[in-house]
Amino acid sequence: MPQQITIGLFGFGSVGSGIYHVLKRKSISKIHLKTIVVKNPNKPRSIDSSLLSYKAEDILKDDSINVVLELIDDAEAAYHIVKEALKSKKHVVTANKKMLANHFKELVSLAQNQGVSLLYEASVCGSIPVLRTLETSFAYDNLKSLKVISNGTSNYVLTRLFQKPQPFKNIITDAQKHGFAESDPTLDIDGWDSKFKLIISNYHAFGVLNTPEEILNLGIRYVKPEDIEFAKEKNFSIKLIGHSNLDDKGLTTYVAPQFIPTTEALTSVDFENNAVQVNAEFAHEHLLKGKGAGSIPTASAVLSDLVSLFEDYSYGYSKASQNPAEFNSEKLVKVYLSSYHREDLQPIKFKTEILCGTQKNLQYKIGKISVKSLQQQVAELSSELFIAVFPD
Amino acid sequence: MPQQITIGLFGFGSVGSGIYHVLKRKSISKIHLKTIVVKNPNKPRSIDSSLLSYKAEDILKDDSINVVLELIDDAEAAYHIVKEALKSKKHVVTANKKMLANHFKELVSLAQNQGVSLLYEASVCGSIPVLRTLETSFAYDNLKSLKVISNGTSNYVLTRLFQKPQPFKNIITDAQKHGFAESDPTLDIDGWDSKFKLIISNYHAFGVLNTPEEILNLGIRYVKPEDIEFAKEKNFSIKLIGHSNLDDKGLTTYVAPQFIPTTEALTSVDFENNAVQVNAEFAHEHLLKGKGAGSIPTASAVLSDLVSLFEDYSYGYSKASQNPAEFNSEKLVKVYLSSYHREDLQPIKFKTEILCGTQKNLQYKIGKISVKSLQQQVAELSSELFIAVFPD
Repeated sequence: MPQQITIGLFGFGSVGSGIYHVLKRKSISKIHLKTIVVKNPNKPRSIDSSLLSYKAEDILKDDSINVVLELIDDAEAAYHIVKEALKSKKHVVTANKKMLANHFKELVSLAQNQGVSLLYEASVCGSIPVLRTLETSFAYDNLKSLKVISNGTSNYVLTRLFQKPQPFKNIITDAQKHGFAESDPTLDIDGWDSKFKLIISNYHAFGVLNTPEEILNLGIRYVKPEDIEFAKEKNFSIKLIGHSNLDDKGLTTYVAPQFIPTTEALTSVDFENNAVQVNAEFAHEHLLKGKGAGSIPTASAVLSDLVSLFEDYSYGYSKASQNPAEFNSEKLVKVYLSSYHREDLQPIKFKTEILCGTQKNLQYKIGKISVKSLQQQVAELSSELFIAVFPD
Repeated sequence: MPQQITIGLFGFGSVGSGIYHVLKRKSISKIHLKTIVVKNPNKPRSIDSSLLSYKAEDILKDDSINVVLELIDDAEAAYHIVKEALKSKKHVVTANKKMLANHFKELVSLAQNQGVSLLYEASVCGSIPVLRTLETSFAYDNLKSLKVISNGTSNYVLTRLFQKPQPFKNIITDAQKHGFAESDPTLDIDGWDSKFKLIISNYHAFGVLNTPEEILNLGIRYVKPEDIEFAKEKNFSIKLIGHSNLDDKGLTTYVAPQFIPTTEALTSVDFENNAVQVNAEFAHEHLLKGKGAGSIPTASAVLSDLVSLFEDYSYGYSKASQNPAEFNSEKLVKVYLSSYHREDLQPIKFKTEILCGTQKNLQYKIGKISVKSLQQQVAELSSELFIAVFPD
């Protein structure tokens, strides 16, 4: 158990500068931030320059540093840093969901073999203690489902669209202006970011580990004002949800926009907030809601990982070792498709068609299809279809 | 670190039978329930009678039992059991909030001195991991406020009253009929149960430890249909809240019905559900919502405590050791009083009166008063006043 934490920090972006300020504000005597490695030596930074370095070795080869905080954007560079750090028997705290989703198995075993902790609470839903709660409170409960709103940008956009239905392009431009969307919002609005977080959560919740390729991700890029009106008329909100559902046939899991009844708590998760709804055999339904993004809130999750190192905390991965669920993409889901052009709906072949209709000049269809078949058909799709999961 | 948990269980009521069934369902090889001590030998019970005993010594003097589960109703009897168990260096898991609130300091130090764990997640908000989250995720954050809906009975009653305003007596009779209220509902509806839970939460959240006498508890016994109508007209719900608020003058803390704007997430916590809203400097606002009562959900919290013993988990009480806040009852709160008789409002002297009015044949007043002064005046009150905290 480390008595003293000496940190080497990679990255000084939103979360990196957040944890720097949080550590400064708290000034915990047992925690010392020694070195910060950044990429660009020419960027002006408002920190003590003696902390700064531009060479990874200044952290990785420094034996006095026992904890690496990996908070850079580039997932592949992060992977190499984390691997090297674990090999040098340093504990690692990271927020990089893409890196984790891509290299999960390797990094988790490496940490276990090296006898160090790899913690990443900040990678899923920022300041909400999702992973810790799954690991400690629900480790021996039987989870039945997980619904996660984990992408702040998409949730912000959807909230604004429900306030005032308008073309998606207008709202995304506006979100970019206000700092709620990246200049390239693909990872966020097409469900990739949510998928990485879902993969991580599923391992803790169900012991199932998927690669990103295995899991369907649908985004909100093609949502139209008439879809919003359709939802409103029928008392639904639309949320981008990472959804997992376990029954005796296995684990169905995907990321997709979903119609959520307005009476459900997930509807009230608005703007950049995140939430996790857990349904467990013993504990029943739980909701955890909070700030999923932002410099200081995300840093608070990094801080909670850091201090837990004093108690030698590492994830138990109890679901994976006890009784891992099996991934199953054959299950049918009820799906809504819409487009301004009826022929655009044709390429998606339902197993059972339930309904087709119009909402003003919008054409829509509702039917049942297996997750696997939907994923295959979507991969070959060229038209601008909005696809969302409809409640059964 | 125990490799094997051998349990002696006291009590076979709602939570006791819940954990019995949960352990049977999960059948965790490292956990063995050896002995169940119950009070009444004549009550028929659907369990293997070889497990049953009627003498506390059969658990307390059994060296093979390393964990005592204390799940009886009687707080004083529970206190003696827990004390003896800790003295015998057995770990203790309990759900008894009244016992803890009355003997907190003594039992926590005893456990620490004996080098064993005293865990009690189930004592606050049933299956919601309130204490664990405060201890792990928010241990080094600076908490600003805590709002807790922890009494399922009161919340059920208030939800029903908002569905259909009606006399309190009717609804409590109905709640008793449906098993949502005890035959003597005093502890629940007068805020005592919520107060015990608030005392426990405050120690983990702010490092402040109060006796029950120090803290004001107001209940919902005198809420009238016209109060509900008043709230509805002004877009409020009324919830029984354990509320703590920390500023540079110290910690203000009390249990009282509160007018909550309907736009706030706490309003959506209905029926027997519980919730905790945490506001922290770094993590910002968080909501944890779930089942606060019920045999199996509460047992799930007991189970999470049990399995955490394998990792030698005990509470860090970091707030108490780092920088405990100071209790302050001098702060002014805005309060609403109502009665059918204007003269009943007279005994409560506000520091500043803000408003007085009528709602049909109901008389009400709103004003500011210190928590301490309110507590003193309420203690001497004989009339049937409904008193609730109003937002600033």
